Amino acid sequence: MADAAVPVLRRIHHVAFAEEEGAVLVGRLRELFGLEVDSEESALGFVERMLPVGECHLQALEATGEGVVRSSLARRGPGLHHVAFEVDDLAAVLRHLEDNGVELIDRQPRRGGGGHLIAFAHPRSFGGILVELVEASPSVPS
Amino acid sequence: MADAAVPVLRRIHHVAFAEEEGAVLVGRLRELFGLEVDSEESALGFVERMLPVGECHLQALEATGEGVVRSSLARRGPGLHHVAFEVDDLAAVLRHLEDNGVELIDRQPRRGGGGHLIAFAHPRSFGGILVELVEASPSVPS
Repeated sequence: MADAAVPVLRRIHHVAFAEEEGAVLVGRLRELFGLEVDSEESALGFVERMLPVGECHLQALEATGEGVVRSSLARRGPGLHHVAFEVDDLAAVLRHLEDNGVELIDRQPRRGGGGHLIAFAHPRSFGGILVELVEASPSVPS
Repeated sequence: MADAAVPVLRRIHHVAFAEEEGAVLVGRLRELFGLEVDSEESALGFVERMLPVGECHLQALEATGEGVVRSSLARRGPGLHHVAFEVDDLAAVLRHLEDNGVELIDRQPRRGGGGHLIAFAHPRSFGGILVELVEASPSVPS
């Protein structure tokens, strides 16, 4: 049933994985498939690298100190970490999700990697999947 | 460095998640974002459903009996399960990976969901990520 209030997931913006310091997998993906890092940013306790694949990116999260990536590695080991979907109006999507009982980690959009507006929803609300929503900043094309 | 032998990952073909019988998350994704199932297949102990997002799909793996999905749920709980990349020539990619020390679960392409040729590589070789490679069958456009 068409419902104008239902937000559209435009695309998978990125699929993130976590790994230990050294970024071995990033190097391995370059060797095996020629994947290149097209942006790299440092955050609190981790480095985030974006590797383009088709219209999406892989996002490599390298734990470099204490923080959310290291604690995720301690809890669950290395591997897939979260999936991010691009939406048009993140604030409206967050209201829609809260109205529908979704537990949000970020109740308001915040500035994330690449200058985009981002927010995370709790894995409890998405069958164990950590879901990120991204509203691409017009100043950063990716 | 350009190397003609390095295979290209054309796109993320799908991102798969595993859930218990009942496919609650598939229903929730329809309610929250209007995501629809555009194909559904039964396999040994699970049902696989494809939900298009941009040029990719989410793949929902619902455990319906004993099998690889239920054993994954028992080991790791529900959530992200694997990521699949589309390649042009799967047999050549598998040779390339073996030549470079990657441990393969499937050393030869086999027929998978949608009639595509598929193969899995071991998470030990990809930093804990279960990686699937897909060579799309020309008869099935997705």
